Amino acid sequence: MGKIATFHGEIETPAFVPVATKGTLKSLTPKQVKEVGVKVAFVNCYHLVTHPGVEIIEKAGGIHGFSKLEVPLMSDSGGFQVFSLATGKRKAKVFGEEEPLVEKISEDGVKFRSTYDGTLVEFTPEKSIEYQKKIGADLIMAFDECLDCGADHVYAKKSMERTHEWLKRCIRSSTIDFRISNIKNQKFQFLYGIIQGGKYENLRKESAKFVVSQNTDGVAIGGVSVGETKEEMRQQVSWVSEYLPEDKPVHLLGVGHADDILDLVGYGIDTFDCVEPTRLARMGTIYQIQISNFKFQRWEKIDINKTIYKDNLERVDENCECYVCQNFTKAYLYHLFKQKELLGYTLATYHNLWVMKRFMESVRESIRRNEI
Amino acid sequence: MGKIATFHGEIETPAFVPVATKGTLKSLTPKQVKEVGVKVAFVNCYHLVTHPGVEIIEKAGGIHGFSKLEVPLMSDSGGFQVFSLATGKRKAKVFGEEEPLVEKISEDGVKFRSTYDGTLVEFTPEKSIEYQKKIGADLIMAFDECLDCGADHVYAKKSMERTHEWLKRCIRSSTIDFRISNIKNQKFQFLYGIIQGGKYENLRKESAKFVVSQNTDGVAIGGVSVGETKEEMRQQVSWVSEYLPEDKPVHLLGVGHADDILDLVGYGIDTFDCVEPTRLARMGTIYQIQISNFKFQRWEKIDINKTIYKDNLERVDENCECYVCQNFTKAYLYHLFKQKELLGYTLATYHNLWVMKRFMESVRESIRRNEI
Repeated sequence: MGKIATFHGEIETPAFVPVATKGTLKSLTPKQVKEVGVKVAFVNCYHLVTHPGVEIIEKAGGIHGFSKLEVPLMSDSGGFQVFSLATGKRKAKVFGEEEPLVEKISEDGVKFRSTYDGTLVEFTPEKSIEYQKKIGADLIMAFDECLDCGADHVYAKKSMERTHEWLKRCIRSSTIDFRISNIKNQKFQFLYGIIQGGKYENLRKESAKFVVSQNTDGVAIGGVSVGETKEEMRQQVSWVSEYLPEDKPVHLLGVGHADDILDLVGYGIDTFDCVEPTRLARMGTIYQIQISNFKFQRWEKIDINKTIYKDNLERVDENCECYVCQNFTKAYLYHLFKQKELLGYTLATYHNLWVMKRFMESVRESIRRNEI
Repeated sequence: MGKIATFHGEIETPAFVPVATKGTLKSLTPKQVKEVGVKVAFVNCYHLVTHPGVEIIEKAGGIHGFSKLEVPLMSDSGGFQVFSLATGKRKAKVFGEEEPLVEKISEDGVKFRSTYDGTLVEFTPEKSIEYQKKIGADLIMAFDECLDCGADHVYAKKSMERTHEWLKRCIRSSTIDFRISNIKNQKFQFLYGIIQGGKYENLRKESAKFVVSQNTDGVAIGGVSVGETKEEMRQQVSWVSEYLPEDKPVHLLGVGHADDILDLVGYGIDTFDCVEPTRLARMGTIYQIQISNFKFQRWEKIDINKTIYKDNLERVDENCECYVCQNFTKAYLYHLFKQKELLGYTLATYHNLWVMKRFMESVRESIRRNEI
């Protein structure tokens, strides 16, 4: 339990961080984002660099000014996307020719082609910090190598050491030129170092010790969402738990299922980002949750595209009081999804995020009552 | 200038009627529909019959209960879609085989295949009224044949006469079984007869006289939007102007450009439906309007997909105070449209409908001042 105080507001933790990849929380207006009780959202540096570009975002007063999202925002460093593109087999079209997405990986950083228009973009620790400075999110991440889960110990160690070197460069870079904000010299961006180390316990522990020793504003755990099983992911988090700082926010990158959150807050995780509630919503997967007296009871998902909902005039979720559930039936959402009507995506997104809000409230309440 | 009092509220006229085809105003929540000042919207009987079906809509308490649109609604009879499908060359897939959409046109009505799943659907005057009764819109239309603009005089006359016969059957059908509502016997659906006659002055006048003589609750002019030029359309409206009732609402089907509205209110038209503001919005065409002291000055459209807006940090419309224009820049909308982000369609729709609201306010004010 805690609070992260940012320039754009306080975040009560543990908190769920929905993903507004390109500076829009997927079909919701900023007004609706507030309505559903979102208190912090996540934007992706890689995506914003490739479109619309960080220059225009900076000119607009940062991502808050550009998107009018009025909640605290967290940006990633680009590391995850850069490396997931590298391990994938995707290509970029460059003047009609197929070119590999990642041009060069070195100790210095990564050069790759934009999936959007094929232009060459460079990510180094310094560049990532510069991009994130221009984006201007409240909570920012050091540039890291997000390790493929198949990497052997030799590569994993080398990669971890590179990530550590990059962290030092990120800290230097952020200290030199951006801890002085234009708002009364108030520090308004907080840097998270990222723990890596792949699936190897000794490397995870070594990485945790190193990252925590660097005294960044926050600590994140990276690369656990790319593992093969949930058990591996949880194990990797458990290994580093004892090293996590108690007086600083800890973020777990890319993990945010309800059961993961319930199990992982005990390891000292404060914030979780995950695309699931919004991505599943756009596919018609509607969360159903039961909470009694603030205690979480049951979590289910229904696929509103199923014919059984065609004539179902019950509210979308019997146990929910959000705008969607106060007004609309399963049959109406079924109709909207079957007809690919845009309103369907908005309503499902709205509801799923509302469920996440209620779920996190219940988690915080359970912690208050010492029930977790 | 006038008012149409319906069970779901009053409509100040002249009014613009945006099109909520399938019972959703295209990307806007009912709450947003209210916010943008929509006072009446249009739903399509044909589309609702094919999906989700009128039975479920009736069970949900009619289209208002199903969609939670809280404004007065107008439904068409299916005539326009049925005949535009007949003249088109589209086919329906039936168990993988292509079948013609329209199976049979007769004096009795039309049998056709649903574009959605190929099932055979029947529209007769009685069926159309029955469907519209179940849908439960406030303002409903008689079943008519929407004439192809290429029809010769012989066919046009025959078609008009059929439409007149169908009107009588619609009146009979509506009188017999649905003027008694379940709400304290209050009449809650108002039937419009439809003037047809194609491009022939004598037929248009004959049709106007006949339809008006039938003493329906309202009168609509149909088939003018399918003409070849704007001039033809306006001429067809002008021919019937002298016959239009002054004490009943007059609707012009499928016409609603700003210049049309400005020119046609003088002919006695009270309401105009048109898909344009919402359809264009989803393509990125943003209305720009200038109104000074309630007087309409200038109407323009911009295509937000153009590269010139990439770095444009001006508000979407300099002369607008809607939620979108108070918050977002052209560059942000450009970004959303280029990235196919759902929020773009919502914001553009919201703005264009707000512009229509302001435009209609200025039209009504000009009439009050005797300037039109």
